[in-house]
Amino acid sequence: MLALPDLAPAASHADPVVPVLLALVLLTLGAVVGGRLMTWMKQPAVLGELIVGVIAGNLGYYLGGRGLTILREGDNVRRISDLALTSSISLAQAAWQILPAADAQRVAAALSGPHSLDYMAVYNFVDFLSRIAILILLFLVGLETSLAEMRRVGKTALLVAVAGIVAPMAMGMGVMKLLYPTSALASDLFIGGILTATSVGITARVLRDLGQESRDESRVILGAAVIDDVLSLIVLAVVSGLAVTGAVSASGIARTTLLAALFLVGSLGIGIWITPHIVRYLRAFGIHNLKLLFGLGFAFLLSWLANLAGLATIVGAFAAGMILNDFFDRELEGESLQQLLTTLESLVVPLFFVWMGIQVKLEALGSRDILIAGIALTAVAILGKVVSGWACPRRMNRWAVGFGMMPRGEVGLIFAGIGRGIGVVDDGLFSAVVILVMITTLLAPLALRITLGPRPV
Amino acid sequence: MLALPDLAPAASHADPVVPVLLALVLLTLGAVVGGRLMTWMKQPAVLGELIVGVIAGNLGYYLGGRGLTILREGDNVRRISDLALTSSISLAQAAWQILPAADAQRVAAALSGPHSLDYMAVYNFVDFLSRIAILILLFLVGLETSLAEMRRVGKTALLVAVAGIVAPMAMGMGVMKLLYPTSALASDLFIGGILTATSVGITARVLRDLGQESRDESRVILGAAVIDDVLSLIVLAVVSGLAVTGAVSASGIARTTLLAALFLVGSLGIGIWITPHIVRYLRAFGIHNLKLLFGLGFAFLLSWLANLAGLATIVGAFAAGMILNDFFDRELEGESLQQLLTTLESLVVPLFFVWMGIQVKLEALGSRDILIAGIALTAVAILGKVVSGWACPRRMNRWAVGFGMMPRGEVGLIFAGIGRGIGVVDDGLFSAVVILVMITTLLAPLALRITLGPRPV
Repeated sequence: MLALPDLAPAASHADPVVPVLLALVLLTLGAVVGGRLMTWMKQPAVLGELIVGVIAGNLGYYLGGRGLTILREGDNVRRISDLALTSSISLAQAAWQILPAADAQRVAAALSGPHSLDYMAVYNFVDFLSRIAILILLFLVGLETSLAEMRRVGKTALLVAVAGIVAPMAMGMGVMKLLYPTSALASDLFIGGILTATSVGITARVLRDLGQESRDESRVILGAAVIDDVLSLIVLAVVSGLAVTGAVSASGIARTTLLAALFLVGSLGIGIWITPHIVRYLRAFGIHNLKLLFGLGFAFLLSWLANLAGLATIVGAFAAGMILNDFFDRELEGESLQQLLTTLESLVVPLFFVWMGIQVKLEALGSRDILIAGIALTAVAILGKVVSGWACPRRMNRWAVGFGMMPRGEVGLIFAGIGRGIGVVDDGLFSAVVILVMITTLLAPLALRITLGPRPV
Repeated sequence: MLALPDLAPAASHADPVVPVLLALVLLTLGAVVGGRLMTWMKQPAVLGELIVGVIAGNLGYYLGGRGLTILREGDNVRRISDLALTSSISLAQAAWQILPAADAQRVAAALSGPHSLDYMAVYNFVDFLSRIAILILLFLVGLETSLAEMRRVGKTALLVAVAGIVAPMAMGMGVMKLLYPTSALASDLFIGGILTATSVGITARVLRDLGQESRDESRVILGAAVIDDVLSLIVLAVVSGLAVTGAVSASGIARTTLLAALFLVGSLGIGIWITPHIVRYLRAFGIHNLKLLFGLGFAFLLSWLANLAGLATIVGAFAAGMILNDFFDRELEGESLQQLLTTLESLVVPLFFVWMGIQVKLEALGSRDILIAGIALTAVAILGKVVSGWACPRRMNRWAVGFGMMPRGEVGLIFAGIGRGIGVVDDGLFSAVVILVMITTLLAPLALRITLGPRPV
C-alpha cells in the first residue's frame, strides 16, 4: 500500500505524468530560445539547442540541482534503473555500483531524494521520445532521398565510407602509440575502432536547418553513413574478437556482414517492390489517416528489423523513407507525408538535441592527462573524416562531406563502453572518448554552416 | 557492468526503444482494425479500440503471454516499479507486496523473466503517452468550446452536476444497506462517493467520433464534468475525513474548494485576459511553429496547475482549450491549431483507448458475490447519472446528457484505492468497483450512439 495516493485531498488526482509535462515544456522552451537565437545569428538552430542543453545540464549540476544531476547521466540512468529493478537493491545502491565513485555520490543522493521517481519518469519518457524523434528525423530525410539519386552517388559514398573508416582507424592507432607507447595492441585497435563510427543524426538535422537536403553532398554523406554503420559493425566484431580471444572469428564476422547485407538488400529490394501493393490494398479499406499511420508504422518496423540485423535503428528509418519516397505521395491523396511529419518533427526533434546537450559533461575536461588524450583523439577523429571527403570528385564540396561525416555519437560511446567492459579501455580513455564525442558534435553544425553557407532565402 | 551491451556483434546497436516501437505499431494496428470495424458498423471508433484492447489483454493473459500479463495490471505496474526502485527489492518481490496473491504469482513470474525490462519500458512509455493523449483530446474539445457558449449552458450544467452527485451517492448508499446491512456508515459513504465521479474522456471521444462536439448537450456534459470534478473532490474530502477521524475537517474542505475555485476562476479569468498579449508579444520573435508549441505548452502548463490545485489534469487541458478558443487562430496565421493537433490526435488518442481496454480484467467477473455487488452498483451508477440528465430543459436530449455523464474511470478507481488504503473498502468491493468502471466505460459509446444517432454525413 506504500504507493497508494496520499489521503490529502489535494493529492487525490496526483497524476504521474505531471512532472513529464513540466519537463517537456521546459525542454521545448529551451529549444525554442536556443534555436531562435542561432537562427538569428544565421547558424543552424540545432547548435542553439545543443548549447542550451549543455548550459542547463552543467549549470544544474554545479548548482546542485537534483533533477539535472540525474538526467545528465543519460544512458547510465537506464543502467542504474535496470539494475535496481532486476536485483534486490534500490536506485541509490545501483548508482554506486554503476557509476565511478566520483559521480556516484551526488547521483545516489539525488536518487534517494523525495522526487527521484519523478526524475526517473522524466528520464524514461524524454529518453524514449528522443529516440523516436531521431527516427522521425532520419525517416524524413529518407523521404527526401530517392533511391535513384542514391544509386547515382553510390560509388562516391562507398569510397567516402571506406576512407572514413581506414583513415581515422590508422590515425587513432598512431596517436595511441605516441601517447601510450606501452599500450596493448588490443587497446590501440579498440580506440581506432571507436573513431570509425559516424553518427549522422546531427548532420541530417543541420542539412535540414540549412535547407540543403537535396544536394549531392547530402546524398553522399547519408549513403556513406549507412555503409559506415555496416563497416563499423564489422570493425567492432574484428576488434572485440581480437581483444577477447586474440583471434578473429571469421564466422562471427560473416554472420554480422550477412545480416546487415540481408537487411539492406532485403528492405530496399523487396520493400520497393512490395509496399506499393500493400498500400494500394490498404487504401481500399478507407482507413482514416492511413498515410501517417502506415508511414510511421513502416518506419518503426524497419527500425526494428535493422536492429535485429545488428544495425542502428536510424538506418532502418532512413531506408523506410527511401522506400516510400518514390510512390507514397503519388498513391495516396491529401497532405504529403513530409508535411504531416514536419508537424511532429518540430515538436520532438528539438527535444532530442537539447537532451543530447544536457548529457554533455564538461567536467570530463577537468583532468590534464585526459584532456590531452581527448584533444589528440579529437584532432585525428576530425582529420580522419575530413580526409574522407577527398574521396569525392572535385566538383563536390569536399569540406562539407568531410565535416558531415565528422560527428561521433552514441555508437562511439557504445563501442567504448564495450571496450571498458572487456578491460581494454580504461576510465581515462573513456573520458577522452566522451570529449571527442562532445567536441565533434558541437563543432559539426558550425563547420557545416561555414562550408555550406547560410540557408538560401 | 551488468547492464553493458553484450559482446555479440548483433547486439552492438541494441537500442532500448526497439520494444517500444513494436508495441506502438501493434497497438496502433489494433486501434485501426477495431476502429475501422466499428465505423463500418456505424458505431463510434472508440468502442472498437476498447474491445480490441479487452480481447488482446485478456487473451494474452489466459494464453500466458508475459508482456500482456504485466501490461494489463496498469497502475499497479507503476506501484510495483516505484517500490522496486526505492527499496531494496526486485520487481518480482515488489509484485508480491503490491498485488493480491492470486494475481501476484503470474505477474511476478513474468517480471523475473528475460524481457521484463522491455515490458517495463513499454509500460512506462505507452502509459505516459496515453496520459498525454487524453490531455490532447480534452484540449481539442476545449478548443471547440467557446466560453460564451459555456456560460449560456452554465446553469443547466451546474444542475446536472449536482443531480449527478446526489443521486448516485444516495442510491449507492441504499444498495450498500441492502447488500451488506451490517456495513459501517463510512463504507457506505465511501462507495456512494466512488459513484459520483464522472470520467469524461470517453464521452469527449465519442462526441468527436460522432461529430457532435458543438451541440448544446455536449457543452452541458463538459461543463457538468468540470463541476463534477470539483464537487467529487469535496465529497472525497468529506468522506475520507469521516472515515479516518469520524469528523469532517472544515478547514480541509475549505482549502480543497478554494484551490479548485482559484484555479478555475484564475485560469479562465486571467488566462483570457493575458494570453492574447503573450501571444502577440511572442509572435514578434518569429518563432517557427509558434502556434503548435505555444498551444501545447499552454495546455500542459494548465494541466500542471490544475493538478497543483487538486483537480484532474484534463480539467486544465480543457480550460486551456477554452481560453485559446476565442482568439488564437484569429491572431496567428497558418493552419488552425485544431488541424495541427488532429494529426497528433489521430496518432496517440486511439492508443489511449486500446491501452484502457487492455487494462480491463474480465476475471473480476469470476466470483458470484462480487458479480452481484458489481452489477447492483453498476445499475445505480448508470441510473444515478441518467437521472441527472433530467436536470436539463426538455428541449435537450436528456438521455444523451445522462449517458454522457455515465462513464466512471480512473477517478473512481483512485477513490476506491484510497478507501482500500484506509480499510473501508475490502477487496471484494474493490473488484465490484472495477466491474462498474468496466461496464460504464464499454457501455457509454453504445448508449451515446443510440441516443445521438449516427454521425451526420
